[in-house]
Amino acid sequence: MKKTITHAAFGILALSLTTLAAAQMKPEDAIKNRQSGYTFMAWNMGKIKAQVVDGTVPYDKAQVVAAANVIAAVANSGMGALFPAGTDKGKGWKDTRVKAEFFKEQDEVRKIAINYIEQTNKLQQVAATGDQAAIKAQFGETGKACKACHDKYRIEE
Amino acid sequence: MKKTITHAAFGILALSLTTLAAAQMKPEDAIKNRQSGYTFMAWNMGKIKAQVVDGTVPYDKAQVVAAANVIAAVANSGMGALFPAGTDKGKGWKDTRVKAEFFKEQDEVRKIAINYIEQTNKLQQVAATGDQAAIKAQFGETGKACKACHDKYRIEE
Repeated sequence: MKKTITHAAFGILALSLTTLAAAQMKPEDAIKNRQSGYTFMAWNMGKIKAQVVDGTVPYDKAQVVAAANVIAAVANSGMGALFPAGTDKGKGWKDTRVKAEFFKEQDEVRKIAINYIEQTNKLQQVAATGDQAAIKAQFGETGKACKACHDKYRIEE
Repeated sequence: MKKTITHAAFGILALSLTTLAAAQMKPEDAIKNRQSGYTFMAWNMGKIKAQVVDGTVPYDKAQVVAAANVIAAVANSGMGALFPAGTDKGKGWKDTRVKAEFFKEQDEVRKIAINYIEQTNKLQQVAATGDQAAIKAQFGETGKACKACHDKYRIEE
């Protein structure tokens, strides 16, 4: 739990302060990197969904563990650094979908981000047990944690 | 080591056999997903390089561990499934840069992929020790493992 909060804190700190790394990064690269992280995460969420929720692909514990490892690692990677000020507009691989409110409501964003990191860490832990019912339940919680941000701060396509 | 090989085997198996998941995925999505994985990995390689090799950003153990976790998780995620037959041409976020030879030289690709997974796993282990000299050395090995594929199978930009 302590570790979770530390990582969350890092991610959020990076959101508030412009780190040296972020300062050197072009806005288009920051947007490209965050779009890449979420896209790759979504591919891995999809694998868990197919195997444990929908049952359209046979359950393979190693694949679900590997997918959950990606999801937790991406969530814990300090993605806050990829949201430097001014990137509420701009194009990475495509136009960013983040709303301007994301940059103005940092307390709410922080709350959502901490929960998102915690839920992905739990998903990683539960995946390692191989308990499909528990994985399914925690997959749902993780999806809700993602959606909390999408609903408030992502422009609909 | 056993775990490493199992994951490597999965990645490569996925390269040889078209899995159900891959069969359902549009070629453009497979390309988009693999481009996302490598882009996000590169961002994380860059963080380690800045902190442990170039020294342009102060070393922060938690950040380097988090970055190494991403790199290993992406490498172990079975990316072979994102190279279905026919995707030597096509556009994801941008035109794919993979050469047609990649799909014809599976023994060589397998060898390179297994080493790549092993080196990223070692980087993850070494990052956790906090030994900067060892991280720097293993970062170099990981870079070489990436480059082995780029040199043979990636079109220059």
